[in-house]
Amino acid sequence: MQIEALSSTLLAPPTAPIQTRAERYRAVRQRTQWLCQPLETEDYVIQTMTDISPTRWHLAHVSWFFETFILKPHLPAYEPLDPQYGYLFNSYYVQAGERHARDQRGLLSRPTVAEVYAYRAYVDEHMKVLLATASAETLQELTPLVEIGLHHEQQHQELLLTDIKHVFSVNPLYPVYRPHTPARAASVPASAWVDFDEGLYEIGYDGEGFFYDNEGPRHRFFLNAYCLTNRLVTNAEYLAFMDDGGYETPERWLSMGWATRVEQGWTAPSYWEKREGQWVHFTLAGLRDVDPDEPVCHVSYFEADAYARWAGARLPGEHEWEIAAHTTPMQGNFVEEEHFHPVAATASTGSHPLLQVYGDVWEWTRSPYAPYPGYEPADGALGEYNGKFMCNQFVLRGGSCATSITHIRPTYRNFFPPNARWQFMGIRLAKDA
Amino acid sequence: MQIEALSSTLLAPPTAPIQTRAERYRAVRQRTQWLCQPLETEDYVIQTMTDISPTRWHLAHVSWFFETFILKPHLPAYEPLDPQYGYLFNSYYVQAGERHARDQRGLLSRPTVAEVYAYRAYVDEHMKVLLATASAETLQELTPLVEIGLHHEQQHQELLLTDIKHVFSVNPLYPVYRPHTPARAASVPASAWVDFDEGLYEIGYDGEGFFYDNEGPRHRFFLNAYCLTNRLVTNAEYLAFMDDGGYETPERWLSMGWATRVEQGWTAPSYWEKREGQWVHFTLAGLRDVDPDEPVCHVSYFEADAYARWAGARLPGEHEWEIAAHTTPMQGNFVEEEHFHPVAATASTGSHPLLQVYGDVWEWTRSPYAPYPGYEPADGALGEYNGKFMCNQFVLRGGSCATSITHIRPTYRNFFPPNARWQFMGIRLAKDA
Amino acid sequence: MQIEALSSTLLAPPTAPIQTRAERYRAVRQRTQWLCQPLETEDYVIQTMTDISPTRWHLAHVSWFFETFILKPHLPAYEPLDPQYGYLFNSYYVQAGERHARDQRGLLSRPTVAEVYAYRAYVDEHMKVLLATASAETLQELTPLVEIGLHHEQQHQELLLTDIKHVFSVNPLYPVYRPHTPARAASVPASAWVDFDEGLYEIGYDGEGFFYDNEGPRHRFFLNAYCLTNRLVTNAEYLAFMDDGGYETPERWLSMGWATRVEQGWTAPSYWEKREGQWVHFTLAGLRDVDPDEPVCHVSYFEADAYARWAGARLPGEHEWEIAAHTTPMQGNFVEEEHFHPVAATASTGSHPLLQVYGDVWEWTRSPYAPYPGYEPADGALGEYNGKFMCNQFVLRGGSCATSITHIRPTYRNFFPPNARWQFMGIRLAKDA
Amino acid sequence: MQIEALSSTLLAPPTAPIQTRAERYRAVRQRTQWLCQPLETEDYVIQTMTDISPTRWHLAHVSWFFETFILKPHLPAYEPLDPQYGYLFNSYYVQAGERHARDQRGLLSRPTVAEVYAYRAYVDEHMKVLLATASAETLQELTPLVEIGLHHEQQHQELLLTDIKHVFSVNPLYPVYRPHTPARAASVPASAWVDFDEGLYEIGYDGEGFFYDNEGPRHRFFLNAYCLTNRLVTNAEYLAFMDDGGYETPERWLSMGWATRVEQGWTAPSYWEKREGQWVHFTLAGLRDVDPDEPVCHVSYFEADAYARWAGARLPGEHEWEIAAHTTPMQGNFVEEEHFHPVAATASTGSHPLLQVYGDVWEWTRSPYAPYPGYEPADGALGEYNGKFMCNQFVLRGGSCATSITHIRPTYRNFFPPNARWQFMGIRLAKDA
Repeated sequence: MQIEALSSTLLAPPTAPIQTRAERYRAVRQRTQWLCQPLETEDYVIQTMTDISPTRWHLAHVSWFFETFILKPHLPAYEPLDPQYGYLFNSYYVQAGERHARDQRGLLSRPTVAEVYAYRAYVDEHMKVLLATASAETLQELTPLVEIGLHHEQQHQELLLTDIKHVFSVNPLYPVYRPHTPARAASVPASAWVDFDEGLYEIGYDGEGFFYDNEGPRHRFFLNAYCLTNRLVTNAEYLAFMDDGGYETPERWLSMGWATRVEQGWTAPSYWEKREGQWVHFTLAGLRDVDPDEPVCHVSYFEADAYARWAGARLPGEHEWEIAAHTTPMQGNFVEEEHFHPVAATASTGSHPLLQVYGDVWEWTRSPYAPYPGYEPADGALGEYNGKFMCNQFVLRGGSCATSITHIRPTYRNFFPPNARWQFMGIRLAKDA
Repeated sequence: MQIEALSSTLLAPPTAPIQTRAERYRAVRQRTQWLCQPLETEDYVIQTMTDISPTRWHLAHVSWFFETFILKPHLPAYEPLDPQYGYLFNSYYVQAGERHARDQRGLLSRPTVAEVYAYRAYVDEHMKVLLATASAETLQELTPLVEIGLHHEQQHQELLLTDIKHVFSVNPLYPVYRPHTPARAASVPASAWVDFDEGLYEIGYDGEGFFYDNEGPRHRFFLNAYCLTNRLVTNAEYLAFMDDGGYETPERWLSMGWATRVEQGWTAPSYWEKREGQWVHFTLAGLRDVDPDEPVCHVSYFEADAYARWAGARLPGEHEWEIAAHTTPMQGNFVEEEHFHPVAATASTGSHPLLQVYGDVWEWTRSPYAPYPGYEPADGALGEYNGKFMCNQFVLRGGSCATSITHIRPTYRNFFPPNARWQFMGIRLAKDA
Repeated sequence: MQIEALSSTLLAPPTAPIQTRAERYRAVRQRTQWLCQPLETEDYVIQTMTDISPTRWHLAHVSWFFETFILKPHLPAYEPLDPQYGYLFNSYYVQAGERHARDQRGLLSRPTVAEVYAYRAYVDEHMKVLLATASAETLQELTPLVEIGLHHEQQHQELLLTDIKHVFSVNPLYPVYRPHTPARAASVPASAWVDFDEGLYEIGYDGEGFFYDNEGPRHRFFLNAYCLTNRLVTNAEYLAFMDDGGYETPERWLSMGWATRVEQGWTAPSYWEKREGQWVHFTLAGLRDVDPDEPVCHVSYFEADAYARWAGARLPGEHEWEIAAHTTPMQGNFVEEEHFHPVAATASTGSHPLLQVYGDVWEWTRSPYAPYPGYEPADGALGEYNGKFMCNQFVLRGGSCATSITHIRPTYRNFFPPNARWQFMGIRLAKDA
Repeated sequence: MQIEALSSTLLAPPTAPIQTRAERYRAVRQRTQWLCQPLETEDYVIQTMTDISPTRWHLAHVSWFFETFILKPHLPAYEPLDPQYGYLFNSYYVQAGERHARDQRGLLSRPTVAEVYAYRAYVDEHMKVLLATASAETLQELTPLVEIGLHHEQQHQELLLTDIKHVFSVNPLYPVYRPHTPARAASVPASAWVDFDEGLYEIGYDGEGFFYDNEGPRHRFFLNAYCLTNRLVTNAEYLAFMDDGGYETPERWLSMGWATRVEQGWTAPSYWEKREGQWVHFTLAGLRDVDPDEPVCHVSYFEADAYARWAGARLPGEHEWEIAAHTTPMQGNFVEEEHFHPVAATASTGSHPLLQVYGDVWEWTRSPYAPYPGYEPADGALGEYNGKFMCNQFVLRGGSCATSITHIRPTYRNFFPPNARWQFMGIRLAKDA
């Protein structure tokens, strides 16, 4: 029986040197606006399906978050810029009042983009005042709120990218967000299994930095010996599955997966289409040929699961993934690389056998999104952040090419329904030892 | 501005003095852009239901119409500005090629508004060249095409207004298109019946000006003696129907009307809501109290029919309406008045007993939209303009406050499905003599 | 100006000798049960789409009609067999109280079939008493109610057949209602045009026998000269339309028709399928090869309209049909022939140029179902019989192979929405002279 | 009837003495038909929602199972009674061929009930021959197939009851399946917590009797110390939740649960309605007053979860439940008691602190239905029995008043989507120690 602890260094803050609160606030907020630079005013308005939100809404909602949870309760005499914004830009916090319907965010032309930027500036200005003038005691109380506000904004930075990708993709003119920046060419390492021992492990966060409530409490979990593949599944490998009738063989799919495939007419990952016999896919750099070496992306849980079954393997459990990730350095193809797409794996130069653990694509695990033993959501509206979604979703791990390196952790649990495809989602295989 | 009535002079061209072709082209095209002046860029993009189109789409589609039916076939060496616009801005002309799905017009952010205006300018420039350089023979051939293109654009001017009204109405911020300009106050004339004789009448257009193919051929139709009310039904009268349980009494409704009412939850005309016990309604001037003297507006055929049954009357047949309209002067509350809403009736100063025949609201008739005896649609794609819609729609007559006075005729047949409410639609009563 | 009158003999009662009221009541009621003889208990229960009703429901509903409109108001001390039947077996008469939802009739297993037959017997017994004991004055008052009750039952006899056909058709075992009885073989007469003069005609019923309120009032209607084809369109002719891309050419269809075709995936008339390169169709005698000489059947208005356009013709107006039918003898392939399917035309032996006017299939007209001038529905619940359906339906004329010859008249107006196909519906062509 | 508890003796066969194969086959098959005795022919035909199947279909499908997996492969020269039954009565085994659509089982009237009973007799007769004549070697091979066939039939016995309950419930006549047999009256024991220790436990089946593949492999699982309530939540307790606004307070619900509640309009458990201020509910004995002492039943996972949150507790994990169940005697209110409804708890007469663990209602756990570590489905079509449903479902434990005592085990994992309510489903609470 063995309990694997996180080494103390793993839990150091992910970026160094540590910025001041106000600097970090400014940096994250500016980053959001930097992501919008390539957009036209019209691009901010569109909602192409219920899951996605107009860019303008993201910009306003993250400001609403600071206003609602920090400025209103903590800045004396704070007056909202517009009292109706509380209604328009609340997402799902029932304890924060009534809200505009999610599937109708694309029906609003006002406030305009310029007005939304003015709203952001208004919130920033008051946040600056608050952080500069608050007592030490208040600042201590505010710190976790500012932290969650910034991590919340970073989540929406990622959604902003995945959502604008969807918006552009349904337009026959195929707009380009930013041109393609080819990654260094190199041959992809062969797929190989990496072994992990059986044991009673500790899972979940216990450090001192920021983490979401769903990453705790830390608890014991028994794992049989298992193996993970050294890198992500590539387009070439996924094409082999497709060529072998992957999308025509119901016995390889979950029952609900097959029903979804038929209903949606899936025959390839999302954003793929065949043009003159050649697979191309829409990316944030426009339409591109499918590169066989890049990790397959924009597949649902159902497809990932069917692929794994076809490959004689299975998807990892989230605990298996976390144990493996703890010993892997935090580096990878994050949004800071400005590829906005996963890139082909390159052989490890160090002693770490697992590649592409962080960044590139969120990795589907076979773990339903459920509370850890002893989990208690926070009181009040912020308690709605995670807990109420623990149903009919699966956990994904590791961040993607649209995630900030300052936002991810080994214990980070992302979650989506099994039919979701519009995030940067991909596949790593597992098997029993 | 007034146009002479029926009998021999009736069928004179609807506007005088006749402008030159190029002047009229320029005037209509500029009018469209004038209507857009109050809009923000974001307003151009929204589609709030399948029936309506984004402003930007209207602007582009009417230009596509000139490009497709005039420039491409008649201007030598004409090159479209962007070959994909033919796909994006075709509405329903199957003989003009594939087209973008109608219910997805609100999913496109590109081309931008500026690009659409550039497209308009490009088409205008080439139209100018064509009209200035074409031979007399070509000009003769082009004249009906230019005319239909301009009337087509005028139809979209009206839709542009009714559509932006819907877009603004679903926004909790209730944007104002243009401020309210109160019409002259005066007491509304009492409702009274005007009698018409039985007879074998001629119906339909036979003049020399422009008309749509569905207005002909002129043909004989026998009418029993009948009566029409002298003015439109007012909000006060409609409120009496509502207060008498109009929306809770299925036996007053058509079967399909009642099913629609229940399914849609209708309890008042469209755009109405009750605030603190008072009925208000959304107008292009924002939220206003319901004025009891104004004509009721934004009612479906089902509501108009139920109201008429409650009132012990019925809706007019379109032939009855047309015979009555021929003797009524062409004047009224058209878009040129810039009220953008129906106004209360004022007593006639002349000898014409019927008020509000033209303008204010389109008047529902009980005539299903069907071909006149001998009707043949034109050959080619323009034959799709009217004929293929002759099913499950009802005819409306007389134009509205969003219609141009240069666009309407006594024989003009508008048509909408019986559940439509977003146009400026109202009620005039009829009965058997 | 010409007014074409019905000859006096046309309006004689359709069957002779005239039965007594009680005899006719018994005969019609027994006929209903005779139609059910081939059914198993399980067959009575099924509802395969909202439009159709389980056989058991038909049997009960027509008895409910007599109970509600005759026994309850007119038979002293009448007690319903079960007070809940009033709720279960009311169809759409809102003035007769609440009712069970139409689309859920197939969710009920009780009352059982045996209980429904007992209900019929109970109503019959009381009707017998009432007709035997009522005063002459009461009998006079009852006569039109009994008549409408019997005609109502005859309508449901037809629906019972068309509905059980649909029920059987979705069952992969393809049950047979009654075996095929081949009609006499003979070559089908060539298609030919029959001419009719222009004139101001009188339309609608004015005799002394029973008629539905929608057949009146009799009124004047002007018709241009026109032509009708001498017989119904055959399967061979319709197959030529299909082979010429009839179902792949949107410009031949109404806009709503094409949308329906695409949505429903129609590629042939209802009940047709291709097996090993050969068209077969499901009939009440099971699966049979499509006979090229038989009239095409189970086509929607949309298909009939598209076929007519392809053939360079149009569908008749209902007034045109009625004028032509008045001079045609009342004979044809009615339900009494027990073919339960249309049969091939045979050359006329008399001087009547039009074949298959009555029976075989209901003929789609291009007339929207609308009230005749001066139409007033009856007071009370029976006023809901026809009038409230005058919206988005088209008129069909002439009866079918499932109609009783004692039920039809030249003025009879049947009506269905343009997408309906499960009735015995077919095509006769018309054109302007 | 009582079965020994955990540790070494736990995994003895669940019933003793062991019947012969043929006897047990006959007993289970006869039991199915006994359950149908109260039904009318019409009752066998109805399908009131996609989840449920007509009785007739259940009767045929379980016979198809024996035919497909035993008779066809193992009885030489076996000829199916009707080759189309393979298509009609396959449920979801894609490797067993095409099948009739699940949501259309209620559209079939044939084969008749009598024909389905004949099909059962045909299969039974051949099974008898096979079991009487097979070699010892074949019998050994057949044993697990016969066992799974019988357990499969027992599952459908339960569904047959829950499905006919739904069919009867939508009928305004509220048919009675079997009259109410009141259970012995006694006061319900007070709710109390029972403690369980933390530890690394073994979970899953490892005995020698029959079990489903999803109950294994047996594996280690670490549990923190926890508590379970001694009995099921009663109607009285659930009414307190309802009276405290349980159905109006979104913050007590999962996000998807609340959306489901709103969409479905839930305000009470399924089958409940308020009549004259009093809660009644439909049972297999007809409409009855809600008994405050009986366990609450027909609640979804969403309601169970919201109730637990309101009560300051949570639902048990399936591992927690299983560890507790192992030490509890196998007795309870099973279908053999013929209550067909859960009954009030009575104080334990023995030393077992947990009441109602088995029978009464299936207990929702908070465990998503997922494969155990090392799980591998069987090869071939029988491998589709469980594994392909491991997505978006939750595990329930313990059997119900519609389950046979010969069918249940401590390791038995039932599973349903979180919105399911038509099974006999209820609530036991848990909390961390």
